[in-house]
Amino acid sequence: MNFGSDNQYGVDPRILQAMIDANARLTDTSYCHDDGAKQVDDRLSEIFEKQVKSFLVVNGTGANSLSLSTITPPHGAVFCHEGAHIHTDECNCPELFTGGAKLLALPGANGKILPATLAERLTHFGHGEHGPKPSGLSITNATEMGTVYTPAEIKALAAVTKPKGMRLHMDGARFANALVSLGCTPAEMTWKAGVDVLSFGGTKNGGMLLEAVVFFDTALAEDFLYRRKRAGQLVSKGRYLSAQMLAYLKDEVWLENAKRANRLAQVLAKGLAQSNRVRVTQPVQANEVFATMPKATFAAVEAKGAHFYDWPLDGIGADEIHCRFVTSFATPEAHVEQFLTLMREVA
Amino acid sequence: MNFGSDNQYGVDPRILQAMIDANARLTDTSYCHDDGAKQVDDRLSEIFEKQVKSFLVVNGTGANSLSLSTITPPHGAVFCHEGAHIHTDECNCPELFTGGAKLLALPGANGKILPATLAERLTHFGHGEHGPKPSGLSITNATEMGTVYTPAEIKALAAVTKPKGMRLHMDGARFANALVSLGCTPAEMTWKAGVDVLSFGGTKNGGMLLEAVVFFDTALAEDFLYRRKRAGQLVSKGRYLSAQMLAYLKDEVWLENAKRANRLAQVLAKGLAQSNRVRVTQPVQANEVFATMPKATFAAVEAKGAHFYDWPLDGIGADEIHCRFVTSFATPEAHVEQFLTLMREVA
Amino acid sequence: MNFGSDNQYGVDPRILQAMIDANARLTDTSYCHDDGAKQVDDRLSEIFEKQVKSFLVVNGTGANSLSLSTITPPHGAVFCHEGAHIHTDECNCPELFTGGAKLLALPGANGKILPATLAERLTHFGHGEHGPKPSGLSITNATEMGTVYTPAEIKALAAVTKPKGMRLHMDGARFANALVSLGCTPAEMTWKAGVDVLSFGGTKNGGMLLEAVVFFDTALAEDFLYRRKRAGQLVSKGRYLSAQMLAYLKDEVWLENAKRANRLAQVLAKGLAQSNRVRVTQPVQANEVFATMPKATFAAVEAKGAHFYDWPLDGIGADEIHCRFVTSFATPEAHVEQFLTLMREVA
Amino acid sequence: MNFGSDNQYGVDPRILQAMIDANARLTDTSYCHDDGAKQVDDRLSEIFEKQVKSFLVVNGTGANSLSLSTITPPHGAVFCHEGAHIHTDECNCPELFTGGAKLLALPGANGKILPATLAERLTHFGHGEHGPKPSGLSITNATEMGTVYTPAEIKALAAVTKPKGMRLHMDGARFANALVSLGCTPAEMTWKAGVDVLSFGGTKNGGMLLEAVVFFDTALAEDFLYRRKRAGQLVSKGRYLSAQMLAYLKDEVWLENAKRANRLAQVLAKGLAQSNRVRVTQPVQANEVFATMPKATFAAVEAKGAHFYDWPLDGIGADEIHCRFVTSFATPEAHVEQFLTLMREVA
Repeated sequence: MNFGSDNQYGVDPRILQAMIDANARLTDTSYCHDDGAKQVDDRLSEIFEKQVKSFLVVNGTGANSLSLSTITPPHGAVFCHEGAHIHTDECNCPELFTGGAKLLALPGANGKILPATLAERLTHFGHGEHGPKPSGLSITNATEMGTVYTPAEIKALAAVTKPKGMRLHMDGARFANALVSLGCTPAEMTWKAGVDVLSFGGTKNGGMLLEAVVFFDTALAEDFLYRRKRAGQLVSKGRYLSAQMLAYLKDEVWLENAKRANRLAQVLAKGLAQSNRVRVTQPVQANEVFATMPKATFAAVEAKGAHFYDWPLDGIGADEIHCRFVTSFATPEAHVEQFLTLMREVA
Repeated sequence: MNFGSDNQYGVDPRILQAMIDANARLTDTSYCHDDGAKQVDDRLSEIFEKQVKSFLVVNGTGANSLSLSTITPPHGAVFCHEGAHIHTDECNCPELFTGGAKLLALPGANGKILPATLAERLTHFGHGEHGPKPSGLSITNATEMGTVYTPAEIKALAAVTKPKGMRLHMDGARFANALVSLGCTPAEMTWKAGVDVLSFGGTKNGGMLLEAVVFFDTALAEDFLYRRKRAGQLVSKGRYLSAQMLAYLKDEVWLENAKRANRLAQVLAKGLAQSNRVRVTQPVQANEVFATMPKATFAAVEAKGAHFYDWPLDGIGADEIHCRFVTSFATPEAHVEQFLTLMREVA
Repeated sequence: MNFGSDNQYGVDPRILQAMIDANARLTDTSYCHDDGAKQVDDRLSEIFEKQVKSFLVVNGTGANSLSLSTITPPHGAVFCHEGAHIHTDECNCPELFTGGAKLLALPGANGKILPATLAERLTHFGHGEHGPKPSGLSITNATEMGTVYTPAEIKALAAVTKPKGMRLHMDGARFANALVSLGCTPAEMTWKAGVDVLSFGGTKNGGMLLEAVVFFDTALAEDFLYRRKRAGQLVSKGRYLSAQMLAYLKDEVWLENAKRANRLAQVLAKGLAQSNRVRVTQPVQANEVFATMPKATFAAVEAKGAHFYDWPLDGIGADEIHCRFVTSFATPEAHVEQFLTLMREVA
Repeated sequence: MNFGSDNQYGVDPRILQAMIDANARLTDTSYCHDDGAKQVDDRLSEIFEKQVKSFLVVNGTGANSLSLSTITPPHGAVFCHEGAHIHTDECNCPELFTGGAKLLALPGANGKILPATLAERLTHFGHGEHGPKPSGLSITNATEMGTVYTPAEIKALAAVTKPKGMRLHMDGARFANALVSLGCTPAEMTWKAGVDVLSFGGTKNGGMLLEAVVFFDTALAEDFLYRRKRAGQLVSKGRYLSAQMLAYLKDEVWLENAKRANRLAQVLAKGLAQSNRVRVTQPVQANEVFATMPKATFAAVEAKGAHFYDWPLDGIGADEIHCRFVTSFATPEAHVEQFLTLMREVA
């Protein structure tokens, strides 16, 4: 019963098989200049209905931090949600790869930034070179709170940033989960809504190391080969990265996996909501469920083998704990049922 | 007939199998805190006959640049050979991860630095804070020129650095190749000779992403968990890294592979030396051969399907080209023979 | 009638004379190794009743950013008030000089951080290397809101930081203003209360470029000569910096100037408080006054030659503006009176 | 008898007087937005016969490092002479301000780089993103060896860099000394020869803190206000910088001072050359003289009060020492004579 994180699960067998197949080639071009990498670019351009420039990287932190380095100078600032992974869970890697740009955290319910919040904050930046130059906005979709930004919401944010010359980055560590939740096209969720650059993540959704930086504004990709190398995000045996991405994007593997994870989150949320000791705190729109429960309950189910994390939330009771549950492409449905049963038993 | 680089070959089947086996676990602890990572630490401590602290990272550039960040402050300088990978082929990643420390390049025949060269250069650093603080020395073993430093040679360098409070890093991208060439123990080649921190590389010798930073002076490892994360060198599904390393270090896989690659280099070198149009320029002590040949020969064999790179060398004739040949654990012996036959044919 | 900033005023004639006197020496040791720099160290040690290590630098941004670089690694975080100069007005220089450490902004009334606020925020940092390492706290005394921390308040903050191994920095851009306001000793306001390193500023209080970094924990000063040089904060003709500092600290010039500025702020605040259209928003404890007034009043007095800035404050009325007034050692008392008269006239 | 450095001398009385005059203004706009700064821009544009963008900064290290930050990305490389101040005497400040770009040192007689040397070195940069991107060249005029590049020589270097898209920076710490030596116009020595950005230094030639970054390619100046602030190179009481520069550029003060310093260097060199124990090693084209002498002579004259530094030079005898003598605008002519007499006496 592991709901700790989707990255605690393994690799989709179809993706793993593609890596095994890639090993059948005696040699291949190294450093991500293999044919597979070119095919990834074509496939992503097809999916996004636009000629993109894509670059395979090693992990989400790398994808995000490198993306940010293309939208802000070191004397700039990028706004993000106060719970954004780039701000709370990447240990200053964005600051490193951008050369010291500042992340400015904004509050917002359900892990989402409201355009008015951003607009108000920007009014504080009118005194020239004393403060950093507002350069970008980074949003996460699906968010860290298991919610999603709709294309309309993204457009509304872009309506604040574009007139200021600011760029829009999307952290898509759980891109597929948001996409299938929204039921829109990848294009609608990204560049058609104003996104300039995307961290396209698949590791949490069945990959091993399955991340790409995707540029919709391809001018931002200038010198990105140098950037990737300099940041230590270029691997020599690149064929094993391209193989993963191609398998992930083939035959709707990525969409299927996300749908499954999202569906289990719904099952879990509905089951939890039936308990009067539990309060689901966020709309469940992707593959994460957030809920409060008595600390005693938490301890009891943990002792019985359930694994999930507490998660900070303001305003909960002293005897309560706020928890995050993540479902994945590989979470056994039986484990969800088993956990819900356990929750009833420990009541 | 690919002698371009050992990283153009694939993954040793035994290592790949270990990754497949790792996938059998439904879940595992993420972010390199899995049991496998602990076993790696134990195994490396056993191999090095000393309690080390080891950290799995993504690639050699990351291993080197992170290692350097522990031995120099940003206002420091690290000396290295002018042909060192950290200086010529890591696109300023060492400068990035160290916060802007300077690499100071030293000349030296056969890819090796002489103690006297270093000592002389250090005499220029006596004017206080105007120049950077001499903080470290980085050597590569096997070197970029296919030669090896003996333990005695390393000790002689350490005799220059230690009295100055400078630290010694070894780039072991081809560590196993050097080790089996020297016939000494891993301990003799490293900490017993004065090495403080090692980039222990296995990617070129049969791994997929198989690199670790190994600290012999474990005080340098303080905060290294933060450093690795900040540099984007921490992967979430760490079990696939530890599985590689454990398989690599099991049953002498690493030594066997290196011996095979080194042996093929000897076969290649001996074959090449029989041509009077070819001059082998470096002692062949690991899995690389360097040789000059007429440009016409280079073009002819390339046209027939041989793949290898030209490599800068001073003082060669206008009609000549200097070339690097790399053999790997997986280079077919038949390809070596085929290539030597081709060289004779195009004469 | 300039209340824009204390740095819009000139240089105290006694300090300027000291610079002129310094020019009488045909030559002097360069790069801040002059005898004057040593005398500064002695004088500061005397004033602080402790052997300190001090380093003259060029400006407050440099002093702050360099100070921070000694208390946090690049993978660390320094907490500060959300209105702190280092966070809002130094354009990422702290991020640059620290190598990309993060400043984490805390709210707090009157420009001051409460210990409980910091303690609560620190509870979010328990998940290992994913977030930055909490490394320091920076407080400003006098604060950006013209208030002061008492020694007891500083001690209470240090009681939160010290057990965590975090260091305490004080931005003393208006150190003297705070000191004469508190009526305590320099030692009581700093190291006796737990401060490890101080940006000791005098530029705003009569200097030209009059700033020093003062280490109470002298172990932090290791390699600081290199740090200062690397950051471009070392000037060649250092005698003109040491001359300023020695003149500033002689015969109570620094205390006199601060007392004068503070007194004028009281006169100004009292005068403003008599208007029913004006609300003084912060306790006036140094040389700054913050007050709201009708926008129309602001426009009217500005048109008549009064110069001061609006300053963001939450919760003010739509027709109101929140303003900052700064008095300095050289502000003519008549200008204060003239301005208060003007305020009455435009009513 | 101080020939240690021109920065050990004081401030030209005319420049100091301008600072005193600036103090007569009760208030002035702070942070280098004063009218004086605008006048500096106009005056420099006049002198350079082109509309430039100029920015006053604090010191030469800051001017150089900031200049470089505009011509190279962090993943780039800037070539310079192996004896360049930016490489040997700025303690990694260029690396800091550029975000970790690499300085690549080139050899060259008399402190000068030959176009062929640069061209040859550039041939090593054809393997894509593995090495840094060649982005700029920095030359020093007058050089660190007291020689000068002629406009024709600069043009020849620009003929190598421009086709590669590389930018050309000039470190003009001793700009005036080179200018009066060459007898050309400031325009001929800079942008007409291909220079894009100049560190225009006056501190060594009579200023206190008298340095500017001057952009001939004004597109490079974009965001420079932010860059200067971020680097801690912006002073609050900017009027004292602009006053220095305006006084320096008025009535040929800068040219007079440089001529005087250069003339004394000639006197010194001619006097030294008369001794058969002394060998002048570099052409004397500015205000520096380099010469070898017996170590015993060095010790003897030092004991008698002469002050100058030894300077590394390859290939000198074991009993010899190589020395640098710097003359300044304020070096008493009598001291030169006195020193030459002393040299004869200790023979």
